[in-house]
Amino acid sequence: MATSQLISNSDIAFSLKALRTNNPLVHCITNEVVQEITANVLLAAGASPAMVVGEGETEQFVEIASALSINVGTPFTTRIHIMKIAASKARHTGTPWVLDPVAAGGMVWRDQVIFSLMHLCPAAIRGNASEIRFLAGEGQGGKGVDSTDKSDEAVHAAMKLAKLYNTIVVVTGEKDYITDGTTTLHTTGGDPLITKVVGTGCSLSSLLAAFICLPGDKLRLAASCCAYVKKATEIAKKQCNGPGTFKPFYLDALYNLNPEDFHD
Amino acid sequence: MATSQLISNSDIAFSLKALRTNNPLVHCITNEVVQEITANVLLAAGASPAMVVGEGETEQFVEIASALSINVGTPFTTRIHIMKIAASKARHTGTPWVLDPVAAGGMVWRDQVIFSLMHLCPAAIRGNASEIRFLAGEGQGGKGVDSTDKSDEAVHAAMKLAKLYNTIVVVTGEKDYITDGTTTLHTTGGDPLITKVVGTGCSLSSLLAAFICLPGDKLRLAASCCAYVKKATEIAKKQCNGPGTFKPFYLDALYNLNPEDFHD
Amino acid sequence: MATSQLISNSDIAFSLKALRTNNPLVHCITNEVVQEITANVLLAAGASPAMVVGEGETEQFVEIASALSINVGTPFTTRIHIMKIAASKARHTGTPWVLDPVAAGGMVWRDQVIFSLMHLCPAAIRGNASEIRFLAGEGQGGKGVDSTDKSDEAVHAAMKLAKLYNTIVVVTGEKDYITDGTTTLHTTGGDPLITKVVGTGCSLSSLLAAFICLPGDKLRLAASCCAYVKKATEIAKKQCNGPGTFKPFYLDALYNLNPEDFHD
Repeated sequence: MATSQLISNSDIAFSLKALRTNNPLVHCITNEVVQEITANVLLAAGASPAMVVGEGETEQFVEIASALSINVGTPFTTRIHIMKIAASKARHTGTPWVLDPVAAGGMVWRDQVIFSLMHLCPAAIRGNASEIRFLAGEGQGGKGVDSTDKSDEAVHAAMKLAKLYNTIVVVTGEKDYITDGTTTLHTTGGDPLITKVVGTGCSLSSLLAAFICLPGDKLRLAASCCAYVKKATEIAKKQCNGPGTFKPFYLDALYNLNPEDFHD
Repeated sequence: MATSQLISNSDIAFSLKALRTNNPLVHCITNEVVQEITANVLLAAGASPAMVVGEGETEQFVEIASALSINVGTPFTTRIHIMKIAASKARHTGTPWVLDPVAAGGMVWRDQVIFSLMHLCPAAIRGNASEIRFLAGEGQGGKGVDSTDKSDEAVHAAMKLAKLYNTIVVVTGEKDYITDGTTTLHTTGGDPLITKVVGTGCSLSSLLAAFICLPGDKLRLAASCCAYVKKATEIAKKQCNGPGTFKPFYLDALYNLNPEDFHD
Repeated sequence: MATSQLISNSDIAFSLKALRTNNPLVHCITNEVVQEITANVLLAAGASPAMVVGEGETEQFVEIASALSINVGTPFTTRIHIMKIAASKARHTGTPWVLDPVAAGGMVWRDQVIFSLMHLCPAAIRGNASEIRFLAGEGQGGKGVDSTDKSDEAVHAAMKLAKLYNTIVVVTGEKDYITDGTTTLHTTGGDPLITKVVGTGCSLSSLLAAFICLPGDKLRLAASCCAYVKKATEIAKKQCNGPGTFKPFYLDALYNLNPEDFHD
């Protein structure tokens, strides 16, 4: 396995402070299932979400927004068209955008959508190990939307993919790996209970868009986002009694965590 | 600033009692993000929500419903078509309907949709200060879906808009103002934490539809709805530890508040 | 009223154990309002949800999935087309699928959709008393999405419908009745507060799909699903203070209940 470095607390504190100061406006084009949790995660963290998908306003909103998040969780023809328009516009305006390639490797039609979006220069791609391995030409994808691989097993694939598309690749799992193909950072902590709450991975991708548009080193900003989520996960895990109570405590933790909570 | 009067507890008690007695059926055509919280707010308060958007049934359902709520938060062509059909039908059948002009002033295409709906005689329009100011021909709209103005600064615009469209205009914010252009009522209380939970404003608009279809004075019914929500917000704020736990406590408070809780 | 038998604890324990062992992948084509709670209910219970609605991938996913769930809560033309494609494919591949005929009897257009889906051989139909009575040719449907009849009054209709379509019919309410037209099982318990949380009925239908695809007697698997939900409802009711806090506790209860909790 390639060498990776743990993101530092000072980086996380710096990034979270930048988020709270800048309150970025994040344009989200996401799947039908996770729209509410995505908006609530962004609000709790300190960003402003806006779900804009209209034929006559998507392009204009890409110009207004600080960042764009595209998630292919429940693609259908008219929405895919909007995703491509938005990503093309973002490429043109230089608006950083994040791709979440949900269930890549599972279905031929969806994979075509994902690859056509990948060619529109996302600033970051965030997936689970099975998705990232598939996109890098390894493995067969997961089970539905769930990974059948561990994140450790996808680090090489993530680096390869990052180099190929000149982007940041984030593989989330027991550990999260964040790489630009040369340097790889990681985060530890969290709790697997988070996988029993729908939209926690998808909303992380949208939160990643909020972080990578901030001033600073993109790789550290992205890794800080992951570390902040891991920390909120741990706090919620201690308070909850299952996936139902996990969610409100998780949002509270995102809201209550401050830069000064990250120190050595 | 124009003079306004605080809604009385006896009016709130009267209105909430009417809601619980009549259990109105509210037809909601709302945005993709807030459908669940909208339904849950209406259920907790004592109304019956029904989200009906089908090409072949929307007109029929307007006839069945007690009230209609239209929210343009995530407009797209086919859904806008349904909104116009529903509002036209409601105008024809005399079904009271409420318009939530989400992000008015932000994008040209959306503004056209909003103005064309406003001409279909809504019984009430509910927005934040930036939205209402824009619709009245003042200001430039907010930041994405968020207001950049205070509700105090939109009272004059609300009155102007109410007169122009012969409707009730509700501006929500730190104080809520409810006006028919001549008489203006207001509510106090609440807590800004509610703005960190997506759909609390949108669901208020749908709840407003539930209240204004009840027998009684429309302006006082509308103001009572706002006051009831402010009260539930205060209760939830005291119990919660952030926006995550706010939401379940807020729904509980809407459910547990009774007419007799509003007395002098 | 026809004779029915209470589902036994040993059957429930057997069924829940099978669910946890098999972790079925459930393809959900459901309404706009309940997608998140549906996914969270399936995850909490121990199944894997996947919402797949794309024109180019729905048929392929029916082949991959263990079961299919179709809910007509917010039908519109393009989605109805996908529902029919999915149900036809499921019939062809022998994938068990469940139909939730939301608001049957309320609108002509929707009823046509429901009847055309019923001819595609669902393994089970789950509705409230008003919906099931209407589909069996009795009664006039409910009020919006709410039942105006009691489940006791729909047992005969459920049996008739089950025989006519050679399927399992589940009527939920104060008691749930589960019948194949010859044998009828029932469950007791639960709490009416669950009707104040949107999507609890709809998500039960998707959970039913997860249970009926398991190895074992389909009627007992379906009744076990209902009994497990009734038990989780009781636990959540004791912990909550209204419909807002009910939901997280309900999901926790689904997650924490184990086969060994069902014993005589």
